[in-house]
Amino acid sequence: MKQHQETLEIHTRGRGFVEFTDRLRAVVRAAGVQTGLVVVYCRHTSCSLLIQENADPSARRDMEHWLEKMAPENDPDYTHTAEGPDDMPSHLRSLVTKTSETIPVSGGEAVMGRWQGIFLAEHRARPHTRTLVIHVTGD
Amino acid sequence: MKQHQETLEIHTRGRGFVEFTDRLRAVVRAAGVQTGLVVVYCRHTSCSLLIQENADPSARRDMEHWLEKMAPENDPDYTHTAEGPDDMPSHLRSLVTKTSETIPVSGGEAVMGRWQGIFLAEHRARPHTRTLVIHVTGD
Amino acid sequence: MKQHQETLEIHTRGRGFVEFTDRLRAVVRAAGVQTGLVVVYCRHTSCSLLIQENADPSARRDMEHWLEKMAPENDPDYTHTAEGPDDMPSHLRSLVTKTSETIPVSGGEAVMGRWQGIFLAEHRARPHTRTLVIHVTGD
Repeated sequence: MKQHQETLEIHTRGRGFVEFTDRLRAVVRAAGVQTGLVVVYCRHTSCSLLIQENADPSARRDMEHWLEKMAPENDPDYTHTAEGPDDMPSHLRSLVTKTSETIPVSGGEAVMGRWQGIFLAEHRARPHTRTLVIHVTGD
Repeated sequence: MKQHQETLEIHTRGRGFVEFTDRLRAVVRAAGVQTGLVVVYCRHTSCSLLIQENADPSARRDMEHWLEKMAPENDPDYTHTAEGPDDMPSHLRSLVTKTSETIPVSGGEAVMGRWQGIFLAEHRARPHTRTLVIHVTGD
Repeated sequence: MKQHQETLEIHTRGRGFVEFTDRLRAVVRAAGVQTGLVVVYCRHTSCSLLIQENADPSARRDMEHWLEKMAPENDPDYTHTAEGPDDMPSHLRSLVTKTSETIPVSGGEAVMGRWQGIFLAEHRARPHTRTLVIHVTGD
């Protein structure tokens, strides 16, 4: 059993989903693990992870729009407003999506389904550099 | 430390939750691991995982109904409609539930709580055969 | 590769988030693992896990309030009402938050971000004693 850990920096262009499936697959290959697990961890509270359909851009846009409606900006119930109108919605949209995902590895590849891609969902309005930690373990 | 990986096929009857707790427990026993982890991974984007109360069918029905209201069919905001009225709601209901779950193993059993069951939540209207990957590691 | 598993009891004071970041860090240190993973598992269906901003109490209150609005008490659609008005909302708020989280360990510490804390979200109205299982693996 061996372990391999890497940090992945994702540059976002403001609100929206950024796919990094190919970069994740490259880390798994670099780890040299045939059978095992890959863990993806997001070190932030205003962006999050999603494994979702990556074939049709319209599905992605509908998901982004739905999350925006679920936790809108300028809700008069918010009291945490000092960091801007996009801050509290970012925490809420992160809260219902993912901070960590764990994917089995088989034959040297993450066993993601045919239509699955992995995304960083940026919830802040402005561009950010986000840090993910990828951990591969197995043999 | 050893590893054991299996694919589990779940036949769904259309929209609704399908419990597979007993099948998961059987995989953990087959792995012969006393202390470790079991990872459950869903390879789809229109069904998802849930660990929830398995005692009372009324709680399950209320959960199904609440997810249906949260992401209803025929929302005029959807643009991704080519795959039918149940497709975009399926992605959205998957997005707020789980793609992967990781459960510790102790004494050769997953340490699920007394009232917890693990479910595949089918979000599409029609029956499907769904594939989960179960990975057990430990010693 | 070694493993270390502990049970953590969290005493809640009724509805609200209880941070246990320091207790999680202590378990990771006790495990003596430099590089690896820590898994946190919640054995209940009416409380759940969250990794979120821990700096500003107003952000936490807004998250608690938003979850309460998302799955309110006394919704006439609920049929599972025998265990009290706070029971069905507790399952629903658990369903959109987390049952398990997996965090990489590096340099003997969980790699949580600067603003991240880990919380048990108690969704029931009354105080409870909740049980989490913490599993650390690595070398």
